[in-house]
Amino acid sequence: MAIQAVSPDTADRSGADRSGDAIGRVGAQMASPQEARRAIRAGLHRGHTAGLAPGYVQGNLCILPAADAADFLLYCQRNPKPCPLLAMSDAGDPRLPALGADLDIRTDLPGYRVFRDGEPVEDVPDIRALWRDDFVAFVLGCSFSFEQALLDAGVPLRHIATGRNVPMYQTNIDTAPAGKFHGKLVVSMRPFSPADAIRAIQITSRFPNVHGAPVHIGDPALIGIEDIDTPWVGDRTEVKPGELPLFWACGVTPQSAVRAARPPFCITHVPGYMLVTDLRNASLATF
Amino acid sequence: MAIQAVSPDTADRSGADRSGDAIGRVGAQMASPQEARRAIRAGLHRGHTAGLAPGYVQGNLCILPAADAADFLLYCQRNPKPCPLLAMSDAGDPRLPALGADLDIRTDLPGYRVFRDGEPVEDVPDIRALWRDDFVAFVLGCSFSFEQALLDAGVPLRHIATGRNVPMYQTNIDTAPAGKFHGKLVVSMRPFSPADAIRAIQITSRFPNVHGAPVHIGDPALIGIEDIDTPWVGDRTEVKPGELPLFWACGVTPQSAVRAARPPFCITHVPGYMLVTDLRNASLATF
Repeated sequence: MAIQAVSPDTADRSGADRSGDAIGRVGAQMASPQEARRAIRAGLHRGHTAGLAPGYVQGNLCILPAADAADFLLYCQRNPKPCPLLAMSDAGDPRLPALGADLDIRTDLPGYRVFRDGEPVEDVPDIRALWRDDFVAFVLGCSFSFEQALLDAGVPLRHIATGRNVPMYQTNIDTAPAGKFHGKLVVSMRPFSPADAIRAIQITSRFPNVHGAPVHIGDPALIGIEDIDTPWVGDRTEVKPGELPLFWACGVTPQSAVRAARPPFCITHVPGYMLVTDLRNASLATF
Repeated sequence: MAIQAVSPDTADRSGADRSGDAIGRVGAQMASPQEARRAIRAGLHRGHTAGLAPGYVQGNLCILPAADAADFLLYCQRNPKPCPLLAMSDAGDPRLPALGADLDIRTDLPGYRVFRDGEPVEDVPDIRALWRDDFVAFVLGCSFSFEQALLDAGVPLRHIATGRNVPMYQTNIDTAPAGKFHGKLVVSMRPFSPADAIRAIQITSRFPNVHGAPVHIGDPALIGIEDIDTPWVGDRTEVKPGELPLFWACGVTPQSAVRAARPPFCITHVPGYMLVTDLRNASLATF
């Protein structure tokens, strides 16, 4: 299987190429989430999922053995902004009917990353051969949903306009530990004019299940970011004069906590190769 | 009638002394808006209205002859952030049943300011002798309601903590003109930590009828404010290192537009001497 080169730390779907070639490659039959998953399951779509099933929620995946799942669930509960849990499977059950009646978590993502003792060891196109009776699958919301809401409202996003990956940074903010899971909060940054910053706070506040409102606005140094032009992961995005940087809790945070926890076994999605769900982005709005 | 000295431009209730002595002076029988209006109507309460009927909306008043009322209504419609219209009377009718069944706009405020040709000429304790069959009363929301919501949520307000008037500034932003009414947007400023700034945007967004979300965040120069430490009206409030100034559309804006329009006759409340209504602050929340 050929999977495009990506940063191993970039779990967020924002890592995907936004060129939209996935749509062009696969065609209009991928407009619904069911069609997208069916094509992925059949091996007809092997690329990233950007642009598939427009308007539907895509999720981050984390699969852990049951022995670690309770702690990870607690970590998500204690850190809802970086770890917004959309669904969790029963142990050994590869289905997640809340996200799609036909959904099989072993086959329905175009790429999986396998970790042993916290280190990535291989990327594979499905995990039927790896599946165990004690595996629990977690699907977490990702920033794509709120970015779509911002674009729909006419609030521009520079990293998308310039075809870049969103810049991400480690902060000096500790997440709330749970069992072996711990680490610093990772944030993504998007710059806005003051009026758009206010609008972006309003819009993303409506979507707590996909990171919600920003955690910080303005001076990066106040959250331990020394150089805004040198992201930890992702691409530099210019903050122009008169603009304010907004910082959102990022889906890389739980992956970072998994790497710190070094569980014997873990499977995530390949960055940008997300789970396409039947949930509409708009259905996540709380008001 | 003795009315405390206040800046003639400070129409916003924020101009009131926040010491709470009004409550001490009048006692617990002013806890409901009906009791407060009854005491004011009977001349038993002659001070500002800060602290009266906690939890209930207080409003800015503007009374104009019918010949100017249509344009002023249009001005409010076109500028809802500085001019959030809560109620408008029928011409010649001093009642506003939407704001209180017993309400009489001629007697229920502790102080009225009379303008002729756009200039203040006297402050009076009631306007029964001045009332005309062509008068139309406008009641506009004021920042007290959203400030209460911020305090209830644990978001501190420095001008209140330090017993000062909120600082207000003329901006370089034109309001949308309507007939003879026009002028620059006036804003009030409150400083916050970044996290509280995000929370303040969320909370005030819920209250569009009392100025709603801020119109600006961050650099004052971007909206034509040259020196944050020299407010146009009100008291200097320090913006500490690491804090962001937030700017809200201010109820002084319509009074400024009235002064620019120079209608032959106009009556407003005396700054801080507001109309106490039966509306609960919480009832204005849109979500």
